[in-house]
Amino acid sequence: MASSKPPVEFWFDYTSPYSYFAAWKIEGIAMQYGRTVAFKPFLLGAVFPLSGSAPLVQQYEPKARYSKHDFERSARFSGLPYRYPDNFPMLTQNIARATIYLTEHAPGKVPAFAKGAMRAYFTESAPINDPAWIGAFAAELGADGAATAAACADPAYKDKLKAQTEAAIAQGTFGSPWIVVDGEHFWGHDRLPQVEWWLHELEDH
Amino acid sequence: MASSKPPVEFWFDYTSPYSYFAAWKIEGIAMQYGRTVAFKPFLLGAVFPLSGSAPLVQQYEPKARYSKHDFERSARFSGLPYRYPDNFPMLTQNIARATIYLTEHAPGKVPAFAKGAMRAYFTESAPINDPAWIGAFAAELGADGAATAAACADPAYKDKLKAQTEAAIAQGTFGSPWIVVDGEHFWGHDRLPQVEWWLHELEDH
Repeated sequence: MASSKPPVEFWFDYTSPYSYFAAWKIEGIAMQYGRTVAFKPFLLGAVFPLSGSAPLVQQYEPKARYSKHDFERSARFSGLPYRYPDNFPMLTQNIARATIYLTEHAPGKVPAFAKGAMRAYFTESAPINDPAWIGAFAAELGADGAATAAACADPAYKDKLKAQTEAAIAQGTFGSPWIVVDGEHFWGHDRLPQVEWWLHELEDH
Repeated sequence: MASSKPPVEFWFDYTSPYSYFAAWKIEGIAMQYGRTVAFKPFLLGAVFPLSGSAPLVQQYEPKARYSKHDFERSARFSGLPYRYPDNFPMLTQNIARATIYLTEHAPGKVPAFAKGAMRAYFTESAPINDPAWIGAFAAELGADGAATAAACADPAYKDKLKAQTEAAIAQGTFGSPWIVVDGEHFWGHDRLPQVEWWLHELEDH
């Protein structure tokens, strides 16, 4: 029966710390309800001009300050290692394209790739948008590193990421992580308890 | 020992649905750790010009739409009755001044007053900023209704609310609810699990 249920969709931008925290929890939650997780990167930076928003650390100074503190506290609360990246926020178009490439060619590697890259960025400031880093990490996971790195500059994957970002905007996504369970939308790692409650309710009906 | 611990500070604007949800949970959480709750109303509208923000339902349309849905879903998740108010958002200066008056003259009534007014607003669109409503509700709780209503237009309480709002801004508050535990700041009803975790950690040390 598990295979008949649609996956939980996890829309995210790699530079979002709350997405890192949620990415490491969402599979365990989904699994309890016979679901897998579809990792769907998009570019949050494309949403900001529409929403009139900006990265948290570039907003009103007290909000920026609070956010930096909350990232660190939420990591401890989530039991995850964390260090504010040296290069934060960063561009994420290459690793997003590589993720779409892996989703097509080595889907079983995607969760480890997405979670591992976020952990590398949010613990050791790894240059996860660098095609060389991307290729090496994909190879480490047993995927085709050269092909994964090549996808970063491939017009086909540029278009696919553009389409995925447009799909995010079209469905009303304005933040990251953005979790969709059978058409129900949840914004933020702090909605994970509601995601779990929702999956539980669906199970009962 | 309980009386020696500082209260948990609950800074809020009466027109905030997430504050309503949190107001009905925070005392139960605080009580487990020998704490009371200090209800401290302020005017979130005074922060928006500084932070460049606005009420959620007046922001980017997908965010406004999501927020309305999330209010309703979060109410169900919290087990609280809820109906989107006819007059939302609303001005809250009178009920905030009345709350400060009660804090000085009938502090034992404040939690029931604050929680009851929010429930009345968020379930039946009660005109909780109307001095007549405020006086009647204060009287119903056994406080001096006429004096509480009179505080709404009293320059002394105008000044006290202004000072409390300035104190909120000075401490970096940019949203509601805003919870302070021994100097540690938490924004949002979705940080209640972290508030509880923090109280627990303090207990251990």
